[in-house]
Amino acid sequence: MILRDPVHGLVSFESDEDAILVALLDTPELQRLRRIRQLGLTSLAYPGADHTRFSHAIGAAFVMTRLVRRLRTIHDELPFWQRLTSERARDALAAALLHDIGHGPFSHLFEDALSDAPSHEEWTTRMLLDPGTSVHAVLSRFDSTLPARVAELVRGRHELTYLARAVSGAFDVDRCDYLLRDAHFTGVSYGSYDLDWLLRSLRFGLSRSPNEAPPLAIDGAKGLPAIESFVLARLFMFQQVYFHKSSRSSEWLLSKILGRVRTLLLDGNRVPGVPAAVAAIALEGDAPLGEYLELDDGVLYGAVSAWRNAPDAILADLSRRLFARQLFKTYELYAEQSEPAGRVRALETAREIARNSGLDPEIYVGLDVACDVPFDDSNEPLTVIFPNAVERKPGDVSFLLRRLRGERVERIRLIFAPELRDQIVQALGQ
Amino acid sequence: MILRDPVHGLVSFESDEDAILVALLDTPELQRLRRIRQLGLTSLAYPGADHTRFSHAIGAAFVMTRLVRRLRTIHDELPFWQRLTSERARDALAAALLHDIGHGPFSHLFEDALSDAPSHEEWTTRMLLDPGTSVHAVLSRFDSTLPARVAELVRGRHELTYLARAVSGAFDVDRCDYLLRDAHFTGVSYGSYDLDWLLRSLRFGLSRSPNEAPPLAIDGAKGLPAIESFVLARLFMFQQVYFHKSSRSSEWLLSKILGRVRTLLLDGNRVPGVPAAVAAIALEGDAPLGEYLELDDGVLYGAVSAWRNAPDAILADLSRRLFARQLFKTYELYAEQSEPAGRVRALETAREIARNSGLDPEIYVGLDVACDVPFDDSNEPLTVIFPNAVERKPGDVSFLLRRLRGERVERIRLIFAPELRDQIVQALGQ
Amino acid sequence: MILRDPVHGLVSFESDEDAILVALLDTPELQRLRRIRQLGLTSLAYPGADHTRFSHAIGAAFVMTRLVRRLRTIHDELPFWQRLTSERARDALAAALLHDIGHGPFSHLFEDALSDAPSHEEWTTRMLLDPGTSVHAVLSRFDSTLPARVAELVRGRHELTYLARAVSGAFDVDRCDYLLRDAHFTGVSYGSYDLDWLLRSLRFGLSRSPNEAPPLAIDGAKGLPAIESFVLARLFMFQQVYFHKSSRSSEWLLSKILGRVRTLLLDGNRVPGVPAAVAAIALEGDAPLGEYLELDDGVLYGAVSAWRNAPDAILADLSRRLFARQLFKTYELYAEQSEPAGRVRALETAREIARNSGLDPEIYVGLDVACDVPFDDSNEPLTVIFPNAVERKPGDVSFLLRRLRGERVERIRLIFAPELRDQIVQALGQ
Amino acid sequence: MILRDPVHGLVSFESDEDAILVALLDTPELQRLRRIRQLGLTSLAYPGADHTRFSHAIGAAFVMTRLVRRLRTIHDELPFWQRLTSERARDALAAALLHDIGHGPFSHLFEDALSDAPSHEEWTTRMLLDPGTSVHAVLSRFDSTLPARVAELVRGRHELTYLARAVSGAFDVDRCDYLLRDAHFTGVSYGSYDLDWLLRSLRFGLSRSPNEAPPLAIDGAKGLPAIESFVLARLFMFQQVYFHKSSRSSEWLLSKILGRVRTLLLDGNRVPGVPAAVAAIALEGDAPLGEYLELDDGVLYGAVSAWRNAPDAILADLSRRLFARQLFKTYELYAEQSEPAGRVRALETAREIARNSGLDPEIYVGLDVACDVPFDDSNEPLTVIFPNAVERKPGDVSFLLRRLRGERVERIRLIFAPELRDQIVQALGQ
Repeated sequence: MILRDPVHGLVSFESDEDAILVALLDTPELQRLRRIRQLGLTSLAYPGADHTRFSHAIGAAFVMTRLVRRLRTIHDELPFWQRLTSERARDALAAALLHDIGHGPFSHLFEDALSDAPSHEEWTTRMLLDPGTSVHAVLSRFDSTLPARVAELVRGRHELTYLARAVSGAFDVDRCDYLLRDAHFTGVSYGSYDLDWLLRSLRFGLSRSPNEAPPLAIDGAKGLPAIESFVLARLFMFQQVYFHKSSRSSEWLLSKILGRVRTLLLDGNRVPGVPAAVAAIALEGDAPLGEYLELDDGVLYGAVSAWRNAPDAILADLSRRLFARQLFKTYELYAEQSEPAGRVRALETAREIARNSGLDPEIYVGLDVACDVPFDDSNEPLTVIFPNAVERKPGDVSFLLRRLRGERVERIRLIFAPELRDQIVQALGQ
Repeated sequence: MILRDPVHGLVSFESDEDAILVALLDTPELQRLRRIRQLGLTSLAYPGADHTRFSHAIGAAFVMTRLVRRLRTIHDELPFWQRLTSERARDALAAALLHDIGHGPFSHLFEDALSDAPSHEEWTTRMLLDPGTSVHAVLSRFDSTLPARVAELVRGRHELTYLARAVSGAFDVDRCDYLLRDAHFTGVSYGSYDLDWLLRSLRFGLSRSPNEAPPLAIDGAKGLPAIESFVLARLFMFQQVYFHKSSRSSEWLLSKILGRVRTLLLDGNRVPGVPAAVAAIALEGDAPLGEYLELDDGVLYGAVSAWRNAPDAILADLSRRLFARQLFKTYELYAEQSEPAGRVRALETAREIARNSGLDPEIYVGLDVACDVPFDDSNEPLTVIFPNAVERKPGDVSFLLRRLRGERVERIRLIFAPELRDQIVQALGQ
Repeated sequence: MILRDPVHGLVSFESDEDAILVALLDTPELQRLRRIRQLGLTSLAYPGADHTRFSHAIGAAFVMTRLVRRLRTIHDELPFWQRLTSERARDALAAALLHDIGHGPFSHLFEDALSDAPSHEEWTTRMLLDPGTSVHAVLSRFDSTLPARVAELVRGRHELTYLARAVSGAFDVDRCDYLLRDAHFTGVSYGSYDLDWLLRSLRFGLSRSPNEAPPLAIDGAKGLPAIESFVLARLFMFQQVYFHKSSRSSEWLLSKILGRVRTLLLDGNRVPGVPAAVAAIALEGDAPLGEYLELDDGVLYGAVSAWRNAPDAILADLSRRLFARQLFKTYELYAEQSEPAGRVRALETAREIARNSGLDPEIYVGLDVACDVPFDDSNEPLTVIFPNAVERKPGDVSFLLRRLRGERVERIRLIFAPELRDQIVQALGQ
Repeated sequence: MILRDPVHGLVSFESDEDAILVALLDTPELQRLRRIRQLGLTSLAYPGADHTRFSHAIGAAFVMTRLVRRLRTIHDELPFWQRLTSERARDALAAALLHDIGHGPFSHLFEDALSDAPSHEEWTTRMLLDPGTSVHAVLSRFDSTLPARVAELVRGRHELTYLARAVSGAFDVDRCDYLLRDAHFTGVSYGSYDLDWLLRSLRFGLSRSPNEAPPLAIDGAKGLPAIESFVLARLFMFQQVYFHKSSRSSEWLLSKILGRVRTLLLDGNRVPGVPAAVAAIALEGDAPLGEYLELDDGVLYGAVSAWRNAPDAILADLSRRLFARQLFKTYELYAEQSEPAGRVRALETAREIARNSGLDPEIYVGLDVACDVPFDDSNEPLTVIFPNAVERKPGDVSFLLRRLRGERVERIRLIFAPELRDQIVQALGQ
């Protein structure tokens, strides 16, 4: 199988080991990812960002094929029982392709909005282990213990440390692909880094104990720029895209909508057009796998469309706003306003204004805290390894990473209905 | 307003003339294009191709802002009544942005599948002229005759020939954007051409009559490579993307599904989950504008999802195949097989095989003819103009275009259910 | 050895087979290519085009490593004695790296200007076979028959047809690299094509006789766009760069300078600052290899600089013009003027004008004919091979190539001193 | 005039204001920059880096045309006497083009090697002010005070602060171009940043006093990523390219060669092939402008070529090594070895080894300290300006810049003849 991918160019799955990828791509669980956008509602801010989890899954699997090839050029230095056999390569490829199949509509948003819902990782595990899924059937066809092995690997657990980290770690194939992909489709060029160089710079570190396979490492000072630029790409993508005010406010709005639906359902109201899985999760905190698999962006968007005419005025109002992209506005809190006490005061002020305008302050005003630590090597097993077999932490070697280590990027914002904007800006500020 | 666009980079609509674009972008008619993929079902073949008509509309408008800027650096050579006033620029910008708002779900596919439905051009006109739409309201707010003017311009009619051709011609802003955009999102690099150079090479040609504004022209032999590479980009995109067998066969499948729904409805059957506009068009050949505007990719895909459980076995079967991407296969006809008589024989052979396998030959087998003429300057007013004011046709000057002029690219294929493949290949094949 | 190359990205020569490349790169004969521009005087027209033959040699060798890797994924279909052994791969790599070491200053220009000088191919052979060169020493160290084998291969002769064609054929690694490289450094984006796809599309064709290794072939209709875009890239580069009027006129000027030097020397004059090899070639048609190896762009440019003060007025004048980039002008001949009789008339007219202005017509006026056939498969062994083992010529399968096959691009120009321009344009011109 | 530039694409100098650029480009002083590589000997490490100061000068001027255009879209907010008149724009364009004409062979290297030579800035001033140069003549033709004004501006002095900083400041057009250019030609993709966004983010800051024109500023938090990525691009280029061990060691070698030539000349020896300007500078610390203008890379390289056969054994040896790219090796000092005392010890150890091997320790061993402060806003007038007219320093607003502010990147290395390597590594090393 050969595909054209706008990020990686020619993607070919043609080797014997790749056969599992081709078989898995045809399953309905994977095809469902075609209907789930990688970046949720971000395309409301970046009109190109309509790429799906399906293309990302292919990309992650492709990066894994390249990583496997790289590791094999160097794995002779390992004892033979720690090398990358065909079986282990197959595990890794399957895990890379399947690592995200559990995502609900609009990716992370769904699980965040219905907070006691099973996480997407939980759904991934179910899809892998449930004998009724096609994914399970395909994996089992190759090896009856494969579903369980892949489920473990997706969670970052594998006898070979280096393989576990390649699926789930600070520089895993998931991140390797999504940074490039999100950058390509949003048009934010800052998000690029040098994947060729990163792969070329990988080698094995030192084993922690005689029987344990070593983690991945970076090949001397030469490889540092590759991970420096990777970390910076991530930092920029957070600042520019993942924390973008329109992304955050539209996600916030959808989350309020789903919350409202749940409240209405729990209060015994009938809400038209609620997909079965949403109703089940809202009422019972869980849903049958079959129902969950029916969910996708289109289904949920169709529900929002229907809710525009819901009897509940608030649900109808919120749904109409989202559907027509009349997003809530934001007001960023800096300096003292962003301190805990300042946030509370600012939120209270804004809620008071909402109350006076006749809007429910719990729904039409909120506080949004977005934060990330772009780089922290305190618990990261990836080291930089020098010719004399000395290992050092990246932050100890890199000028840049030392200065970023453990530092936290934070964006704190009030989110509110646009009609409240003038009053809130005047009350708060500058 | 500033946007990041993966194709054009920084897109800014900040001048006074651009204000109309900002106002139009907020209308529900334009926002609806966010839910309509530019390339229909092509993402089934090219996993990156999920870009929407919305991003294309922005791109076309942006190319128009650049074109307007270019024309203004040279329009002093025209009599003042033929120059690009602010009003005319506004007309052009609005037309560029709105030229495609009439598209139904999956773009061209919808109108082709329900053949007596109004064309997307017709729907565009209605949206512009119907006093009930937001687009009409915004345009009228600027000038009460603007809706009508834009409707004319979208159809390629304007007192200034050069402006009419910029909206609808062989090198119009629509094509200028979609070639680059489709290339970027499919990853088919062949589809690129040099937009900077093309714009830079434009000048005015010779007026056909003293009172008529001149058409656009290319500035001497220097500008030829720009249009040569434009024509080739188009040729490559047709060969690689628009005529791709999976795109064609999936579109063919969806069109069979819609046809089946119509047949069932006309026969008086109840079909569950048919969107109102689809039902109306199927039964009456037309639908109210309000219903049509409710259609988008998600709605139609939701309907296909529902039809998987339709009582009609054929509808259910086709819908299941499309939903799970179990596409029909193709068999390309070459040489004598592609001649009219050969096609008929091949189709008949394949239908006979379907019949023997118990499949309805009208539905499970078909003949698909895709064709395009990549370049023809016999009716194209764009000329190449030399320093001595001599005009010549591009095909008379360009080594390459002379050899392509009027030539026809054709791909002729049988399309059929995959279970028929072996028999058909054996019966027909080489 | 790892290098960063702006064209191919990460270039690594790290395998055992690559060792020969690393050894050869250190020889003075190869290092000399650092001082020879790939495109002669083209940087006078395209200010970025200062790239050297050295970077091209690395690029061609790198493409060969990729080609070798590709061929090895498919060579199992050949009888074992036709496969790509390590030894054969080494031959091919060395030949790719060394194919152009014989070039003189400003590449092709030098041998064209001193017409009975040995060709650069001849110099390449001498450098390979002369026991005194470092290149010979390095090759011999690997295998005493290697210099001779590489010399044969560089000329396109090898027992394995497919390998011979990879070094010297319509789609050889030389072209594969220089098209991309020249496009990158001139900034002419038209010159790009899809190298990944081209390599991926290669397979073996049908052997011409039972004992003969097969030529390369293209894998079915799928691979056609790769060679179509390759052919077009070449066509565009010829039209835009290699036939550019300033490139041609500056090369013409340098060639007149060298011609003048030869005339003066043959007439027994002393000309200051003539490099030894130039003097020898001018006087005797050949030079010792050691002297030839002292030549490079800087040496020749230094000579031109010195000749600005030559006693011979014409030599001084021409040298001053070139050094200060006061290039000769061109006048392109079209239509009847470009026919044989028209050319003669035009040249005669221009010469008459020169004569009347007191300038030597043989030196200050000339006719320049640039021509190329972008695609011709009449003698090209590369075929398109289909699943059923049917082979066809590319031009028989490709819409585009059929229309270009055997067609000739020609640019015919008068070249003359700028002070003659107005009179010549007036006399000839339209 | 239109040019293709691989960095900026289409470069056009066609407006009335641009006429000065076209006139200046034809002068011999500017044409001389065609023969001076932008990055000195860096192409010995990065084979693509043969680009010249000429292409950089064009690039810097082109960035200035874009900056001028940007400033004019916002300069209405300034009092009319501070706006960008045509005359001021012309000053700025000329200064951008001419800012580096004073550079000697291999750029910075030359002035560093002959340490009491006039700086390249001094040579620039002389070329501008000397009535005998063509540059002076062209500038004077436009306005007799222009040479002096441009000379001032090149040094960063102009009545309009914002214009002065655009020619010479932390984000001036020189850096804007060279970062992109050096990244493009070395192939180090890290060196890119978003020029479009940077230009778009510029606005005017607050004037320091009522009569003073304001400095440039960045438009709110939105513009930060542009300067963040600019600063990082610079950091990466320093780490990867400008501090590359092969660049440093080859520059060090050339500088030893020039030093040796000077010593020999001062001692009264005859050294063959010394260019007049080099001899004059070596002996007297200065040279006539005419002689200096005869210098370029080729001339100096030709001298090195000649010195391979110099009677002085050391000069001959060093010249042979450089010419054949047998570069000196490096040993990087970390941790305590990089502290002042450690450096002295390491250097002494290495010198001792040289002495014992019979090599002059002052010539065959040295200590190289490369350092840079990638970002420091303590003296930088560029601020970030917010909607409420509050200005803050970039480092106070940006997460990243705060962490880099004032930090120093340093690479400390021993440099020595390769034959000493094993002993030195063993003596010093880990």
